[in-house]
Amino acid sequence: MNPLSLQSAIGILDSGVGGLTVAKEVLRQLPREKILYFGDTCRCPYGPRTPAEVRQFTTEIVHFLSGYSMKALVIACNTATAVALESIRQQFSIPVLGVIEPGARAAIKASRQGRIGVIGTQGTVKSEAYHRALKLIDPDLVVVSHACPALVPLVESGSGDTDHARSIVKKELLPLKEYELDTLIMGCTHYPLISDWIQREMGPSVTLISSAEETARELSTVLQHKGLLTDQTMESLEPMDHHFFTSGTPESFRRIAESWLGHSVRVEQVILDTLTNHTAG
Amino acid sequence: MNPLSLQSAIGILDSGVGGLTVAKEVLRQLPREKILYFGDTCRCPYGPRTPAEVRQFTTEIVHFLSGYSMKALVIACNTATAVALESIRQQFSIPVLGVIEPGARAAIKASRQGRIGVIGTQGTVKSEAYHRALKLIDPDLVVVSHACPALVPLVESGSGDTDHARSIVKKELLPLKEYELDTLIMGCTHYPLISDWIQREMGPSVTLISSAEETARELSTVLQHKGLLTDQTMESLEPMDHHFFTSGTPESFRRIAESWLGHSVRVEQVILDTLTNHTAG
Repeated sequence: MNPLSLQSAIGILDSGVGGLTVAKEVLRQLPREKILYFGDTCRCPYGPRTPAEVRQFTTEIVHFLSGYSMKALVIACNTATAVALESIRQQFSIPVLGVIEPGARAAIKASRQGRIGVIGTQGTVKSEAYHRALKLIDPDLVVVSHACPALVPLVESGSGDTDHARSIVKKELLPLKEYELDTLIMGCTHYPLISDWIQREMGPSVTLISSAEETARELSTVLQHKGLLTDQTMESLEPMDHHFFTSGTPESFRRIAESWLGHSVRVEQVILDTLTNHTAG
Repeated sequence: MNPLSLQSAIGILDSGVGGLTVAKEVLRQLPREKILYFGDTCRCPYGPRTPAEVRQFTTEIVHFLSGYSMKALVIACNTATAVALESIRQQFSIPVLGVIEPGARAAIKASRQGRIGVIGTQGTVKSEAYHRALKLIDPDLVVVSHACPALVPLVESGSGDTDHARSIVKKELLPLKEYELDTLIMGCTHYPLISDWIQREMGPSVTLISSAEETARELSTVLQHKGLLTDQTMESLEPMDHHFFTSGTPESFRRIAESWLGHSVRVEQVILDTLTNHTAG
């Protein structure tokens, strides 16, 4: 890895564009820190892939990012966090954060009755990673996990707040209604984009947790406690100080990134040597 | 310091009983961790004392707590955090958290317009510690700090929600109303006890930040990232596993602690060698 300094970047990786919700929060909560974002768009989604494949892809991306000077890494993808976080932590000496522990911890803080729901992709729910992270800290919690496979396509379709969209959200969340939850973790980076709809369906007594916001918050904590906050002069950075990489088509990545982040971005396409097939699984 | 293990305790120190709001959150958010609490009741309040005195008192308490096996320390007092945190961090190798950085970071996460207010004792406001912590991370924030000396006596008087109490809160917060704040940090451990009154006065568009909740949350993050979470069997602890020390009268400390925490506590009186006078000046 390149020499580390306080001006080194925060690496953020995701299977595609979903992790841009985390990147946006890092840029907002740590406006003086530089980011390097890698979206593995051409191998997205990771959800249906085997754990071994996801670990391999994640390791490849971290090796690529290590060619730059990087002082911390965020795995901004729930699936990759669930299966690859520990292995990446063992391989690299910089602080490595996933999105699951911050979401779990924020839910514990928010929950008053200790009744916590988790929604995510089938891969994330099957891994039980949120369940483990929550129970590790508080074994007395009631935790209900539920896969909502129809929500990511709904977000990606860019559907408006139509009757059809409402009926999908209602149907996906229905099984959670009987548990009297007080807190719900949106365990997929796409969900914050429809958090209003989820909130309306769950009702005002349920606190929604966005892993994106919470991960940026924990990154700030970890950087400060490791003495790694930038010591740059007291200026926020400019959009072009950051760097975005995609394994897919730069134009479509740029279009989505600029729309989500609200400013122009510098995007480069990267062909990783061992990139495997483009099937979307 | 005694040998450290994953079953070692979390030390929490305060000038008196105010830090029990932090202790309560640590017990709630980390129910498997053991705490050692020191309330320096006989030298309370720290607010009007000189920084050198506060640093000396804080160091004495940490030395006392070090006689136990302690894996992390929380300075649960805004005044002591403002003037003694750095010095304690330099003297002890375990992670040391104050209440100011977590409150600042939570405010940055919560704030949408970047207009953040801070209320605290005169000592805390004069130290500008919140201002520095906020600006270090985001120099573009608008930060308005305001001392509210009448609020701690109001809390301590145990006054109900009377017209008189309302008028005090209204008067103390009035100078903040013109700044169109979107977030307000309650920079004193007493304030969360009257957060309903503060919220009513500031209006629903202002998000209140409780340093107590946020500090417990950051403690959980730091313990996990340092590999220091307990590896005890999957059980929550019992009230008597924790230990409370006071430099004042144990009976009155016990009464307040049991009332705030909602369970019985084990309290011991401690006479520190160099304890100085009891004046509350």
